[in-house]
Amino acid sequence: MNKLKFKILKQVWNARVWEISLNWVKLTTPIFMPVGTKATIKGLILDMLQDPKYIWDLPIINLILANTFHLYLRPGDQLIKDAWWLHKFENRNWLILTDSGWFQVFSLWLGKREDREHSHQVKVKLTEDWVKFSSPYDWTKHFFTPEKVVDIQCNFGSDIMMVLDVCSPTDCNKKTIEKQMHITHRRAKRAFDHFEKKYKKSRWVLFPIVQWWTHLDLRQESINYLSQYARDGIAVGWVSVWESKDLIREVVEFTWAKLPNNKPRYLMWVGTPADISHAIEHWFDMFDCVLATRYGRHWLAFSNHWDIKITNAKYKSDFSPLTNTCPCFVCKNYSKAYLQHLAREKEMLGWTLLSFHNIIYLHNMLENWKQKLLKQETQ
Amino acid sequence: MNKLKFKILKQVWNARVWEISLNWVKLTTPIFMPVGTKATIKGLILDMLQDPKYIWDLPIINLILANTFHLYLRPGDQLIKDAWWLHKFENRNWLILTDSGWFQVFSLWLGKREDREHSHQVKVKLTEDWVKFSSPYDWTKHFFTPEKVVDIQCNFGSDIMMVLDVCSPTDCNKKTIEKQMHITHRRAKRAFDHFEKKYKKSRWVLFPIVQWWTHLDLRQESINYLSQYARDGIAVGWVSVWESKDLIREVVEFTWAKLPNNKPRYLMWVGTPADISHAIEHWFDMFDCVLATRYGRHWLAFSNHWDIKITNAKYKSDFSPLTNTCPCFVCKNYSKAYLQHLAREKEMLGWTLLSFHNIIYLHNMLENWKQKLLKQETQ
Repeated sequence: MNKLKFKILKQVWNARVWEISLNWVKLTTPIFMPVGTKATIKGLILDMLQDPKYIWDLPIINLILANTFHLYLRPGDQLIKDAWWLHKFENRNWLILTDSGWFQVFSLWLGKREDREHSHQVKVKLTEDWVKFSSPYDWTKHFFTPEKVVDIQCNFGSDIMMVLDVCSPTDCNKKTIEKQMHITHRRAKRAFDHFEKKYKKSRWVLFPIVQWWTHLDLRQESINYLSQYARDGIAVGWVSVWESKDLIREVVEFTWAKLPNNKPRYLMWVGTPADISHAIEHWFDMFDCVLATRYGRHWLAFSNHWDIKITNAKYKSDFSPLTNTCPCFVCKNYSKAYLQHLAREKEMLGWTLLSFHNIIYLHNMLENWKQKLLKQETQ
Repeated sequence: MNKLKFKILKQVWNARVWEISLNWVKLTTPIFMPVGTKATIKGLILDMLQDPKYIWDLPIINLILANTFHLYLRPGDQLIKDAWWLHKFENRNWLILTDSGWFQVFSLWLGKREDREHSHQVKVKLTEDWVKFSSPYDWTKHFFTPEKVVDIQCNFGSDIMMVLDVCSPTDCNKKTIEKQMHITHRRAKRAFDHFEKKYKKSRWVLFPIVQWWTHLDLRQESINYLSQYARDGIAVGWVSVWESKDLIREVVEFTWAKLPNNKPRYLMWVGTPADISHAIEHWFDMFDCVLATRYGRHWLAFSNHWDIKITNAKYKSDFSPLTNTCPCFVCKNYSKAYLQHLAREKEMLGWTLLSFHNIIYLHNMLENWKQKLLKQETQ
């Protein structure tokens, strides 16, 4: 029996709108999940994302992402469990998806190879069974296994969890990548076996992850194997990190037809308005990206024609809003001149307002997508 | 005719509650004004201070302070005027009190004397007529006169303005201080003459400032002279900056009986819960201080017994709120453990939540004061 239930609201050849029910929440996909790395979304008051006063008539945000690696190290999964799960800890009743922690370990590993000065401190060691690493906070030693990563995420009370995967730097040869794919497959089996044994009756769901760069044959092989574990959904990773736009799209277009059709598809780390739109047209349902908030902290705002660099001299006395169409309270209440003033003074409020706008801009874009699709005649 | 109107709600020998009407706002004093230095209050979403969702059943914040010196330099008073005044610029319909800019110029001057490395860049020159200074942002040259400072504040659309004063470093002899007091008095005359001539029919009010350290005889002389200008209110400055608690209280207790009784009294820069309580007991009505937000940025929170340093190890897994009595949404929704986590991760949200709590803590304290006084039988 599937825990994640869905109802097809509209499905046309190139796009789909589903209503997904999981635990106490009903979502409509396609959906953008803001990134709440460390039990908060950088720069925001979380309440505002669920308050009509700040997001107008948009549906409230009710699914976000959090990072297993960071929260496991600080404040620790046991403390979060003691706080009655991540939801209660951060005081939000939204659903939470957590990643597997692999990508951050992998970044440490890459960093170690590239930054020799600190490499004696960073220790990352991989075997079939586990990955060992030292904490970048205090150099204490830790390890992840597929089973432990499930347990950690269960301690968070994550609604949607990811299996521990493994993948490879850009300079690996295909033989190595293939080997790592097989390790990942065996890890997925272990994670699901463990989950089945220990958390079968929980309200939580676990997604496998398909990776392997732009090696489409490996992607195909991985989809074939992992589809058996796509009980409630499936994630597609490892695009958009260092690839060109064209390659991202190639992977999206290739996997489109191969993935199981009757499960939600989560395209990891894709977050520009254009890339999200392209992926929606290929039946992807869930997205996350740090870009929205990171842009905000770099004084950049999404807008309908081009990204606005708010510190640009031309906005100094521009009393118009960032956009006329975004329903967020920033666009409704503040001028570019005020936002530029905050940016020049490096006031935190500037980061907050731009980050908030960027998240709601994507949220609104997806909402418009859904409305447009729902009105479209079925072909 | 006075623009600022008041109604005595309660006046007992040692404290008073007034209802003050100015422009579109009715206030009840004693009141704490959060400091909005640069057209924002550091770390806060301004909307939240007027939103019952975040301050529960407290009256909304409807009077704040802004700094003339900073806003004059950046983004400039003309730009703020073009934006339809500071209220519209920062999108709040609260009243705004602005200071005279003197204290910041004075700080530059002190800095110049103490920091020889940069003193060739900072230029401050004082005469009877004007004070010249170079901007700490870009070293451009500027000057203030009593008249110009009134004009600047009118460009902001400030509801309550301060006259340009002048005062002296701690190591001045009394003769110099006395000389500066006389300059201040002449400046007050010029400011009020200018205000009378140019802005008589405006909705704005102007307060004189009584200073002079703990020289009580000079305080007395200054009160005697400046009372003629206390048309709508009077400010008492230059306590609490470098003086000990005892000296602050000595001045408060001395000026108590000397100030005009029928005008609001604004005690500048006093902001600890204990000092505010003491001043309320001496018929002071208005307070401001950066302490509440600065404390927040240093991970300190006001509480009923002692200040809480949230990074203290003992709060690591303390799931209780900062206080059980403060009605702010931080105390209602978040645990000390979560706040410590935000502090350790240096997440902006931590600064925001603690700063917000500290402001509402003072706001609530004053509200409790008022309620207690209103219930007290008149003696």
